[in-house]
Amino acid sequence: MVPVAELDRILSDLAVPIRVRQADLDSALGEVLAQAVEADRDIPPFDRVCMDGYALRWDEWTAGRREFAVSGSSPAGAERHPGPLPGSCVEVMTGAPCPSGCDLVVRLEDALPRDHGVFLDPSKVVRGQNLAWRGSDARAGKVLLEEGCRLGPAEIGILASVGAQAVPVRCRPEIRVVCTGDELVDVDKAPLAHQIRRSNDRFLTSALRARGQGAVPSTHLPDDPELLEAGLGVLLGQADVLLVAGGVSASRRDFVPGVLEGLGCRCLVHGVAQKPGKPLWVGTGPKGQIVFALPGNPVAVAACFARYVLGVLRRPEPLVRTARLEAPTAGLPSMTRFVAAHLRDDGAGGVVALESRGNGSGDFLHLTGAEGFLEIPPGKVLQARSVARFWPW
Amino acid sequence: MVPVAELDRILSDLAVPIRVRQADLDSALGEVLAQAVEADRDIPPFDRVCMDGYALRWDEWTAGRREFAVSGSSPAGAERHPGPLPGSCVEVMTGAPCPSGCDLVVRLEDALPRDHGVFLDPSKVVRGQNLAWRGSDARAGKVLLEEGCRLGPAEIGILASVGAQAVPVRCRPEIRVVCTGDELVDVDKAPLAHQIRRSNDRFLTSALRARGQGAVPSTHLPDDPELLEAGLGVLLGQADVLLVAGGVSASRRDFVPGVLEGLGCRCLVHGVAQKPGKPLWVGTGPKGQIVFALPGNPVAVAACFARYVLGVLRRPEPLVRTARLEAPTAGLPSMTRFVAAHLRDDGAGGVVALESRGNGSGDFLHLTGAEGFLEIPPGKVLQARSVARFWPW
Repeated sequence: MVPVAELDRILSDLAVPIRVRQADLDSALGEVLAQAVEADRDIPPFDRVCMDGYALRWDEWTAGRREFAVSGSSPAGAERHPGPLPGSCVEVMTGAPCPSGCDLVVRLEDALPRDHGVFLDPSKVVRGQNLAWRGSDARAGKVLLEEGCRLGPAEIGILASVGAQAVPVRCRPEIRVVCTGDELVDVDKAPLAHQIRRSNDRFLTSALRARGQGAVPSTHLPDDPELLEAGLGVLLGQADVLLVAGGVSASRRDFVPGVLEGLGCRCLVHGVAQKPGKPLWVGTGPKGQIVFALPGNPVAVAACFARYVLGVLRRPEPLVRTARLEAPTAGLPSMTRFVAAHLRDDGAGGVVALESRGNGSGDFLHLTGAEGFLEIPPGKVLQARSVARFWPW
Repeated sequence: MVPVAELDRILSDLAVPIRVRQADLDSALGEVLAQAVEADRDIPPFDRVCMDGYALRWDEWTAGRREFAVSGSSPAGAERHPGPLPGSCVEVMTGAPCPSGCDLVVRLEDALPRDHGVFLDPSKVVRGQNLAWRGSDARAGKVLLEEGCRLGPAEIGILASVGAQAVPVRCRPEIRVVCTGDELVDVDKAPLAHQIRRSNDRFLTSALRARGQGAVPSTHLPDDPELLEAGLGVLLGQADVLLVAGGVSASRRDFVPGVLEGLGCRCLVHGVAQKPGKPLWVGTGPKGQIVFALPGNPVAVAACFARYVLGVLRRPEPLVRTARLEAPTAGLPSMTRFVAAHLRDDGAGGVVALESRGNGSGDFLHLTGAEGFLEIPPGKVLQARSVARFWPW
């Protein structure tokens, strides 16, 4: 049995393969950019009017002129206005190019109508006011989005603004989920008295989907070494990351570790000083695939997924965070303890973790409303308001 | 111009219509359950073995017996074992039904092999140990998931476990996005010198998608009252929530408020004491549709979306949270100020907000890496470590 920190060290050497695909803007959302994106032209691309009002020449303003004729109008979307006649200004709308020769804009609300024009009387006037000069936000060629950045809504908007209809992003790894266990039946079957319905596959595929992974195929395999070998062999051929649930403990019928090793997988860890999830098996496949064989208990599945699997998938952006315990929580003498919890804002910039109470790690119902697991180090009793790490799933 | 708090009061009266659809488990992820879900049978459904080991009778243990013959084996997935012969135990695996008549399980690691059986020597023995009694987590009929709960991965797993292949969930509202502005061209077009590419629609549809909304249709309409009336009229007929970007300010060519009112929309607010986003228009359509006409500046679009639109869509689960400012931030004399920022864990259960620096609200590039907006109340200078509200998009 290795301590949790030792498993962390082992996992830090594992990485999912980086492949790249071209993604249109819809399918790029939430993905990691695989190549820097530059401004295709200056931003703004022209001297842009930022307020509705009147554009005029600074030298006429400083010469003392306050009343102007209005020589034309320049709406957004029109070509650049050739510029006002002497003694005149141009009516301009937000988003329009600044008329030629003009270098300030007085806002609509600071203008008074006159018989043959406008009287402009702003409280404060500076050259360039209410204008954004061409290139003042970025020059053409400037890197706007770095390689490796995750593309949220703002980044998608920026990609659109520079005409990037498709961008290279990192492919998600191929993941396969397997549930083992002769006691398990499909969700659409009526279980016999000694059977239960499969749910670990649904938790795992849903949690992956919630993290943007898309549809992950899942399979059920019985507690039979030959069928396990055939099934896991096929899946190892498809997967970058293989998640198996069940069949990893110490009984005569826990065939998964032996079958995986027979298929050429190398065991890195079998048994972690943690509860739930003590029998966790982690290894690598013959082609470097990452294999997590999780204990079948649904609470252990959720804890090992949040604590270890997501970390490997999300690297280098771990989702772990810290929170303060709402109530005292006891650790275990020589094992790390994972406690299902949800987080609440304390209204003062802090995060409070509220433990989900249940009948222990066999009771998966207490995961309802939880969002992840608190990590309670071995041999500690944490008082209320103590800080602990929280691993969301 | 109304203050932000007044707009909040106005918005609190608006609600998206609640419709219900049947969702299979994949499409139920992230949705709100529209009807409580009960346990279809006891959980666990049988007295379940929780550890690999040997099941025996408590009365034989208390009578002093420590050596037992092994009368059979009970794997998970097998029918309940009829029970051991007197003086015997049954080998049991995790997940199996407890053999008839047995009422404790001694773990594999506490058993020593003997010629004709096992010698059991656990350090601690209590009746029922390593067993989960039928119904001990929940009795059949107990409500496991309440109406109104949001279905995350754990809830999807629980639905699978009770055989709920499809459940009623609340439909997402129908949303339509419109960008207006003659200066805007499609992302796949080469803009002329005075034109820019549309990006507000991409921000809005991406942000909605990131919140689980699915694909939201978006349209571009020119600054033309007749075309706006025709286009917005069609979209009002389709939408529960209509998001318009641009054309809401005070110039002669800001046609959107007038066109909406001509289409029977009622203006609730036009102008909010905030920056960015001062010209925001909010109203209701003739059939109770909710209409947000956002200023066209991309930073204002993002701020108004995070601050107001998401709140209406997510009610009663607002996404607002609190954070401590990394650096001092000045408010405006008589307006609420929204500052793009991202959050960081401070390692001690607290959340620090880091302001995105940019060239003011016209510079949408500074939204890169931000996650939402800090709200700085009017007339305040907040010092570093001050608490502010943060509105993620």
